[in-house]
Amino acid sequence: MKRNVQKALTALRAVMQRHGISATIIPQADPHMSEYISDHWQARRMLSGFTGSAGDLVVTLDKAMLWTDSRYFIQAEQQLDGTEISLMKDGLRCTPPIGFWLCDNLKQGELVGIDGMMFSVAAAQALQMELNAGGLALATDFSPLAEIWPDRPALPTGKVFVHDAKYTGREASEKIADILKAAESCGADATFISALDEIAWTLNIRSNDVSYNPVVTSFLYLSPAKSVLFIDPAKVTPEIADYFSTQGITTQPYDAVKEFLASLPDNTRVLVDPARNSAGIVDALGSKVIESQSPVLMLKACKNDVQIEGERSAMVRDGVAMVKSLCEITSRIKSGDTLTEMNVAEILRRHRAEGELFFDESFGTIAGYGPHGAIVHYEATPESDATLRPEGLLLIDSGAQYLDGTTDITRTICLGSPTRQEIRDFTLVMKGHIALASMIFPAGTTGHQLDAIARQFLWKEGLSYLHGTGHGVGHFLNVHEGPHSIRLNHVPTPLTPGMITSNEPGLYREGIHGIRCENLVLTTEAMTTDFGTFYRFETLTLCPFERRLFDITIMTPQEIEWINQYHREVARQLLPHLDGEVKTWLENATKPL
Amino acid sequence: MKRNVQKALTALRAVMQRHGISATIIPQADPHMSEYISDHWQARRMLSGFTGSAGDLVVTLDKAMLWTDSRYFIQAEQQLDGTEISLMKDGLRCTPPIGFWLCDNLKQGELVGIDGMMFSVAAAQALQMELNAGGLALATDFSPLAEIWPDRPALPTGKVFVHDAKYTGREASEKIADILKAAESCGADATFISALDEIAWTLNIRSNDVSYNPVVTSFLYLSPAKSVLFIDPAKVTPEIADYFSTQGITTQPYDAVKEFLASLPDNTRVLVDPARNSAGIVDALGSKVIESQSPVLMLKACKNDVQIEGERSAMVRDGVAMVKSLCEITSRIKSGDTLTEMNVAEILRRHRAEGELFFDESFGTIAGYGPHGAIVHYEATPESDATLRPEGLLLIDSGAQYLDGTTDITRTICLGSPTRQEIRDFTLVMKGHIALASMIFPAGTTGHQLDAIARQFLWKEGLSYLHGTGHGVGHFLNVHEGPHSIRLNHVPTPLTPGMITSNEPGLYREGIHGIRCENLVLTTEAMTTDFGTFYRFETLTLCPFERRLFDITIMTPQEIEWINQYHREVARQLLPHLDGEVKTWLENATKPL
Repeated sequence: MKRNVQKALTALRAVMQRHGISATIIPQADPHMSEYISDHWQARRMLSGFTGSAGDLVVTLDKAMLWTDSRYFIQAEQQLDGTEISLMKDGLRCTPPIGFWLCDNLKQGELVGIDGMMFSVAAAQALQMELNAGGLALATDFSPLAEIWPDRPALPTGKVFVHDAKYTGREASEKIADILKAAESCGADATFISALDEIAWTLNIRSNDVSYNPVVTSFLYLSPAKSVLFIDPAKVTPEIADYFSTQGITTQPYDAVKEFLASLPDNTRVLVDPARNSAGIVDALGSKVIESQSPVLMLKACKNDVQIEGERSAMVRDGVAMVKSLCEITSRIKSGDTLTEMNVAEILRRHRAEGELFFDESFGTIAGYGPHGAIVHYEATPESDATLRPEGLLLIDSGAQYLDGTTDITRTICLGSPTRQEIRDFTLVMKGHIALASMIFPAGTTGHQLDAIARQFLWKEGLSYLHGTGHGVGHFLNVHEGPHSIRLNHVPTPLTPGMITSNEPGLYREGIHGIRCENLVLTTEAMTTDFGTFYRFETLTLCPFERRLFDITIMTPQEIEWINQYHREVARQLLPHLDGEVKTWLENATKPL
Repeated sequence: MKRNVQKALTALRAVMQRHGISATIIPQADPHMSEYISDHWQARRMLSGFTGSAGDLVVTLDKAMLWTDSRYFIQAEQQLDGTEISLMKDGLRCTPPIGFWLCDNLKQGELVGIDGMMFSVAAAQALQMELNAGGLALATDFSPLAEIWPDRPALPTGKVFVHDAKYTGREASEKIADILKAAESCGADATFISALDEIAWTLNIRSNDVSYNPVVTSFLYLSPAKSVLFIDPAKVTPEIADYFSTQGITTQPYDAVKEFLASLPDNTRVLVDPARNSAGIVDALGSKVIESQSPVLMLKACKNDVQIEGERSAMVRDGVAMVKSLCEITSRIKSGDTLTEMNVAEILRRHRAEGELFFDESFGTIAGYGPHGAIVHYEATPESDATLRPEGLLLIDSGAQYLDGTTDITRTICLGSPTRQEIRDFTLVMKGHIALASMIFPAGTTGHQLDAIARQFLWKEGLSYLHGTGHGVGHFLNVHEGPHSIRLNHVPTPLTPGMITSNEPGLYREGIHGIRCENLVLTTEAMTTDFGTFYRFETLTLCPFERRLFDITIMTPQEIEWINQYHREVARQLLPHLDGEVKTWLENATKPL
């Protein structure tokens, strides 16, 4: 590996010199601004040997550096060891941003080259400003990979399949009409989409191009005259081709997209979301661009009745799988079996895969035992894989993709007798979870406004968690989707009926334990009064919380009743699908506090 | 009055025609972007006869319209009756913004003229964009008042006095150094200030130029080489002139400001806050402007120890005046005296004026009885002045300017036996008040994030209030000051130690009653833990809440204890200053719930 890294860097520098480039940035990114990236675009991994999900490589003619954040400091140090690449610890005060570092280390007038297809419009603009301040030039058409990566993996070749309207509730042709109507109100007569989840949602298509997100690698151009999907022809079966033609979609090769955009008539007005499209796309469109938030975002975020019914049905199957898994884990530990964190992930996957309409997991299971639970993005590896003992807390964050819905759930359970601190910490987290789940709020309220409701009990004790309280969730689509969220940072999108959001406060004591309690909630109408329309959350997830971790002496009667009522509902919905030991386990787990 | 209005409009149109202006906007504004405006700038009032505190007049060659918001619909209809001016109800969906209306009603190429000194930079830019979209031109140097307003009131001539450093805790020269240091970090070598409260704070000077805000009409230019105050020489006594020279300040006439700015060397870099300076000022500075938030805002908002001690001391005197007033009001009503809302305001003023260091009220007292309490900006007039009866709720929002601090307090009291709805509504408001007062929150938290904490109990019942939950408060200065606040709208400034903010949730049932419960709170440090530094609020205001309006069956033990603890503190601090009937009244009013 180390030798491959050095060979690749040498090849890269040769191309840089030939193009007069003094420095280049190889980001962890793809042309679709995706969270999960297929092997075809793992250039940063190929060039550095570092496998983390975040981090950008900077290569000059005589230096190479990797910027990554605190989650990956240890892993990056290990993986970069023996290469010439030095680690730049992002987020530390002494670490300059990449643009500033380049200004300090290159000479006035030198040229920085990037592949504009790998940078969002906003990121490229910010870089441009930083470099200009230091007298450096930026070329956004530097794409050396073809020359330096002979064994580059192909684009994903999985076949596309139709996500049936019996699950989506709306035909692609109807969605396209909705999108074009919204674009028209922004003065645009066409819309261009790079984001893979937006394309999959719009066309009711899915594939398995990347882990966990059932998306289809493609670009989509929509206009009343014609709508074009840019996609590898190998992915398009005759059936799918027929389907496309019924929906008014033609296809062109994936690589033809920039040429197509450049050749559109000059008076075309194409709506492009600058946060979800690359600088390369905007460059190709030139003056034809109208920048605006993608109309797909709100249409996709607000689920229709068919999707909501599917989600409810998926929750029953996911709850059954969770209950079977928790029962198996706890009883096997009790009986002395050796179980590790990775075994926990396997158990969950096995029970979920038995359920109808199961397609995949919705993200890599986080099973963090004891101190591992305090590492927020922990995913067990063979090296770290801890063996569970009959004591301490186990945090399990997992989810699945079903054809009728996506799930995401976190439970924190105790494997032995809980300590006072475990009970107190868990109860404070749950008080915030319950307070948020019980909120009623006027139309127009954002998640940012509600975030403190979930944190207030922790804050009172000088405790906190730094991740968001809630993220949007797709429908048989990405488990993280916008535009709404519930978080410390300002997000202007109001919580709107039909949105599915996670409710996941937590508490992480380094070296001791981690706690997170996560359900998915649906925003629905609560009431309309003289004071306007009010919304509430309906909890969708069905799985008991660990009864032994509640301290009812610091809970209000309303909080206790919320848990009891939730557990009654879990029992009502799941017990009919269970029998034997698991049924008994759930009956006990849902007894009143 | 009606005849004067017509005469003034005719004169205005003659000047417009001479200058080739097809329409002009006369805003309710002054060149300092003030909330309270002295008579010299009441041009909108002069030209329309409308006396409300918000509303812009638009005059074309054949039409005249007044845009104002729902608070003033009734008043404006009455005051505009008999003039040619039509009312445009701002905020209704069918009412276009002024710029759009002009685009629809003027011809392409016609010229709109405004006085740039009366529009903030942001407002002028927004208008420019709206007009450009309709093909209209904007001139920002149209100032017809001299020609059409022969009996225009002079600029305020009250003398300036020094706000002693024993109250401010910091010399003007030190503050100037702080401001210039902050400006330097923005790349500016000078700072220009139009906002009257910023100037008064910076120079430790006060006057009585407008009601309620003890400010000094002036502009201030600060630079290391020289600092210049632009002020009417008649306001500057020899003593003040001496004081200015000790602080390194020279003075020039108020009217010389634009010429001075225009003649600054071209390489001067002057920091200007675009939200708190007029377009006219920025036009005069031209390319010398660096736009940035005024450094004064945060320096002024975070009170020092001397100011905080002064505020605490003022709160005791204000609390004594409030308690004497409430005792007098309730006992006089009980004894059958005839009292009106305006009498209530007089009683409050009389008791406050007896206190040491009293200077003025900090705003016009709102005493709203019964349904009047539901009119959020109600101020009793001889026509509306209601007589109090021994029943229903009375909302009293009032405050004072003392040399050592500014107060702002709202109490809602019942004059007879409270109804169930009065008790329930009041208790829901107080639960929010208590929840906010008890919050602990990490450094970096904004008021926007905490706003829902105060609203949550009302929201649960489909109730709400549309005003902010809290505003910043000055120190012997404006009762409304930024940059922080606690409100539904996003405000990015974190709550920072030393800030004083109101905590004033409310509930308004049209035609029935209004409830608001307001204390001032100080942000202070609560603790530092492994999870960072946390802040809390210390309540400063000292006055009991109406005991008979609490429904303890819907309060938690913690909420009841908060009230009892607060009342113990009120009694401890105020009883030593009271005797006789008032002392007995307060002892009863602060008994445990």
